[in-house]
Amino acid sequence: MMVAADNLHANNPVVVEALKSLDPRPLQQIARRCQLAGADLLDLNPGYLSKRHEDRMAFMVEAVQEVSDLPLILDSPNPSVLRKGLLACSMRPIFNALTLEKPKLEQILPLAVEYDTKLVLLLLDEHSFSPPRLDEKIALATELRSHCLAAGLEEDRLIFDPLLPNLQWPDGFLRVKAVIEAVRWLADGSLFGEPVGTIVGLSNLRSGLRRQYPWQLEATCLAMLAGAGLSYVLGDVLQPEFSGQMALINRLNPPSNHSST
Amino acid sequence: MMVAADNLHANNPVVVEALKSLDPRPLQQIARRCQLAGADLLDLNPGYLSKRHEDRMAFMVEAVQEVSDLPLILDSPNPSVLRKGLLACSMRPIFNALTLEKPKLEQILPLAVEYDTKLVLLLLDEHSFSPPRLDEKIALATELRSHCLAAGLEEDRLIFDPLLPNLQWPDGFLRVKAVIEAVRWLADGSLFGEPVGTIVGLSNLRSGLRRQYPWQLEATCLAMLAGAGLSYVLGDVLQPEFSGQMALINRLNPPSNHSST
Repeated sequence: MMVAADNLHANNPVVVEALKSLDPRPLQQIARRCQLAGADLLDLNPGYLSKRHEDRMAFMVEAVQEVSDLPLILDSPNPSVLRKGLLACSMRPIFNALTLEKPKLEQILPLAVEYDTKLVLLLLDEHSFSPPRLDEKIALATELRSHCLAAGLEEDRLIFDPLLPNLQWPDGFLRVKAVIEAVRWLADGSLFGEPVGTIVGLSNLRSGLRRQYPWQLEATCLAMLAGAGLSYVLGDVLQPEFSGQMALINRLNPPSNHSST
Repeated sequence: MMVAADNLHANNPVVVEALKSLDPRPLQQIARRCQLAGADLLDLNPGYLSKRHEDRMAFMVEAVQEVSDLPLILDSPNPSVLRKGLLACSMRPIFNALTLEKPKLEQILPLAVEYDTKLVLLLLDEHSFSPPRLDEKIALATELRSHCLAAGLEEDRLIFDPLLPNLQWPDGFLRVKAVIEAVRWLADGSLFGEPVGTIVGLSNLRSGLRRQYPWQLEATCLAMLAGAGLSYVLGDVLQPEFSGQMALINRLNPPSNHSST
């Protein structure tokens, strides 16, 4: 399983301040620390950007590339932000994310096709709703995949995110079960005939819950997802418990060539 | 995932003493405690028995049944011990285990067919050797299954044990990876067209290693196997870390009807 650091996100006040003052150094320091801590990729998320600041993703890309050679994931719902970010990239990035929302199908998908990038397919329907049940997630994955293949993207470009819930939601635990099963179906090829890439954002589980649930819950969920065949996890690599658990998981199940799908 | 307690085994001195003195009470006390701790099944293993003591499994069955209504797994390489145990059972037990060894194919398999019991297929070849690689495990599983189907046992009677290694073995970690992948292939139906039952003995990992590896290693391995779709785990339910981890796993992935296959 590959680890994508989610430390360069706009929910980190250091990142927000660096983007405001256009100071690359704090971003570079985070990028360096993430690489040292074992990140395989860096997910860059500048948050919501006004029209005037749509170049901030490109600024992040340039800052980070000066100090790290890790592959990048450009994480934004805004196609213009993604395009500007991509044009600053020295290596082809991964786009995060397509959903069934019409503007994304019309603008983000063609961009991925144009530059032949890998693309995260976030299992959200046309109203940005995340369905809780396995069969609904599978239906959504199938529909998103059809759009991508029809647009000319190859299967090996697709990375499905079945969307881990916040455990505070009333049906949070049931949703986790559906996510684990969706990952297994996608990863083992039983759904689409051959294995496809999968990703989840582990931090989703605990938004605002740090005190309520023990870390062991996330550690266990992460291991279960790894056992189900997850290709990528998005997480806080600077949290020692997270990187420790990833080290154990990769010791028990060393990434093979296939998991870099 | 269902938990089979491995506490009623002959590596437990209390069990050995009870079998020697034919005292049912210590066995009954262990059975009660296992049931309270959340065991779904009890695995009974009287150890190696001389011809003269082949009725000891039946003694265990009778003792345990007086205090517990949990389903039983009869764990012995000796067909005569299994038969005597079965005849004492009030509910149809599971037999543990068939391998490709000739005497077992000739004597344990017909017994399972005669009584139409579920049967654990331990992935050991005709020389009692456990192959390390995934492709070898798959080949063994396929061959064992063919024998069972040809003998008249239905597919839903089969429970495959890909055999967790002792982590002290030089290739221990690589073997764990192969076990996790074998479980995934078996559990998701991609191997035999429909999902089949799977089991592992978690204690295999740490025979003699209690101090060398932290419990988190087993906890992580157990969660990964659960994520891969494991149906049963054989473990020490009286160890609080084990039952705590099982509680977390079953909270994140509540057993459905399918996992009782």
